[in-house]
Amino acid sequence: MPDGNASTGLAAAPFALAVDAMGGDNAPESILDGIELAAERHPAARFLLCGDAERLRPLLATRKRASQACEMRHAATSIPGDMKPTQALRVRGSSMRVAIDAVAGGEAQGVVSAGNTGALMALAKIVVKTLPEIDRPALAAIGPSARGDVVMLDLGANVQCDARNLVQFAIMGDAFARAVLGLTNPTFGLLNVGSEELKGDERVREAAEILRDSHIASGFYGFVEGHDITAGTVDVVVTDGFTGNVALKTGEGALKLMRELLRQVFTSSVPARVGYLLARPALDRLREWMDPRRYNGAVLIGLRGVVVKSHGGTDALGFAHAMDVAMDMVTHRFNDRIREGLALLAARRATVPAA
Amino acid sequence: MPDGNASTGLAAAPFALAVDAMGGDNAPESILDGIELAAERHPAARFLLCGDAERLRPLLATRKRASQACEMRHAATSIPGDMKPTQALRVRGSSMRVAIDAVAGGEAQGVVSAGNTGALMALAKIVVKTLPEIDRPALAAIGPSARGDVVMLDLGANVQCDARNLVQFAIMGDAFARAVLGLTNPTFGLLNVGSEELKGDERVREAAEILRDSHIASGFYGFVEGHDITAGTVDVVVTDGFTGNVALKTGEGALKLMRELLRQVFTSSVPARVGYLLARPALDRLREWMDPRRYNGAVLIGLRGVVVKSHGGTDALGFAHAMDVAMDMVTHRFNDRIREGLALLAARRATVPAA
Repeated sequence: MPDGNASTGLAAAPFALAVDAMGGDNAPESILDGIELAAERHPAARFLLCGDAERLRPLLATRKRASQACEMRHAATSIPGDMKPTQALRVRGSSMRVAIDAVAGGEAQGVVSAGNTGALMALAKIVVKTLPEIDRPALAAIGPSARGDVVMLDLGANVQCDARNLVQFAIMGDAFARAVLGLTNPTFGLLNVGSEELKGDERVREAAEILRDSHIASGFYGFVEGHDITAGTVDVVVTDGFTGNVALKTGEGALKLMRELLRQVFTSSVPARVGYLLARPALDRLREWMDPRRYNGAVLIGLRGVVVKSHGGTDALGFAHAMDVAMDMVTHRFNDRIREGLALLAARRATVPAA
Repeated sequence: MPDGNASTGLAAAPFALAVDAMGGDNAPESILDGIELAAERHPAARFLLCGDAERLRPLLATRKRASQACEMRHAATSIPGDMKPTQALRVRGSSMRVAIDAVAGGEAQGVVSAGNTGALMALAKIVVKTLPEIDRPALAAIGPSARGDVVMLDLGANVQCDARNLVQFAIMGDAFARAVLGLTNPTFGLLNVGSEELKGDERVREAAEILRDSHIASGFYGFVEGHDITAGTVDVVVTDGFTGNVALKTGEGALKLMRELLRQVFTSSVPARVGYLLARPALDRLREWMDPRRYNGAVLIGLRGVVVKSHGGTDALGFAHAMDVAMDMVTHRFNDRIREGLALLAARRATVPAA
């Protein structure tokens, strides 16, 4: 089976997910703790644990659910965090490569890694391969908004994009919102510098024109602006990888500044400290809701299999969340939805014009 | 005198600033209240008040400092907020046009308007004119960061930019930080998707290469990412107008979400309400520090005169701040600094390569 999650479903591959046990700042311990949590949430799923067998064996033995859910596959090496993608492609037998090979070979439907992002993207593109209908895979993730969750893509896989790429990102984003957020009629917008039709460059205007005539036109809100991301104006924000990466990190930075300033406020005086204690239950709920771990797991979409990148510095809870995202995509036949979407687009327009 | 702020200084033009009294949501009342505040802060400055004389006369009469600082110039019409720039160019005798004409004619060194942004940018470019050494003016503004104020440009004047534009933005941003923030050695960075030298597209890499060899190389930090804006990693963040506009609005949106969530937190229970009251003095200081009015006033830089755009919905305090920014630029001979910078760059490189 060439596809990680073809319509034959989860049962077709022996493993739901292959896990890179050695990637990330706190690997392999936090990875195994994450699997322990994920195994509880997905009791029927089997995972292929890829990494240094000698190091992993004793760690796995002390984690009951993980040891039942996992099969181990030895990988002698691992990809360092600072290795260039071109170099990483030449390293065989790394934990990341072994996990990705399992997806490419049809043994696992998806892969989750907290390791080197550039290496994971390069390996996934070359080994798992891009869907034939997609020109370029995109990095997507979920973030908080005033009206719930918002999906944004591309977050940096493609620094330069044309109108055709943006249209494909919209179709993938639509499928992602259906599969992972469980929405039946997601809305989406193209990120621009204004909401009027004539705003922005040729590229976004051309993409908007194609989308207005597409099978997902009913969900197309039109152009959205930076503040619409957190306002929850749409369920999916579509943009190029340069703008998306900057927007994601700018939003995170602004929230971080606010948290830091609030910390100063609540330690600035005795009354403020007491005030903090009184408001603490509500502040804790807010913190929980905004918890970056709840939003961990960026997905490289548009490939013949599910590829999820966990933040390198996350803990067990964050890694388990990245595995949840991957499981949602596997269970809800994410790639089949993309293919259906692209077929519908093609049926409507004889060809999508190249930009 | 062709330049609004040539080195002859403030005394050369009879008016420091021409003010569009009719632009913005709360005009002309809030504009006049803003001038009243500005006149107190800049007692030696004279302002040219452009707008409907009949409406303005009684309003001015009740504001003592403003009436002493202002001379009125009648403008029969004003530019509506939704008028297209191309249309606005054809309207003669509008309050915005009369104010801009005063700068172009050497009567005033700068102009401040809270009116239609697109119209102001178009009129300024065509009437005030771009500095001969600058290809395209840029929109710059100051925002809050963990380490004080941060300047960002371009914020949307140019949706597409090449390396040469980015280099000129850096030189203008450096001059702006010296003039308005009063920094003697400002640092600046190019906004990118990663901090490593090979990240991003051709455009940012080429701009970085030119800047590393420029007369402001000592202040060049290299590439910065979205989260660096609010972290205060550099004093000036340089980017194209598309990315800058999205980043600005995304950051504002994230802060707005956080404020809204905090409001919910502090009204969610009786203890939380009491907690709010106890922490209130510190929270008020935080609110004051983050007050968008404190950051009002986007500057269109690279023109033969100072052009400042106030937010359309701001109040007197916000408008007075926009006037402060304009006064800083006039007083500190902002355009002379840009010219000096460009001359130094030209002396170092025979030509700046076109991208």
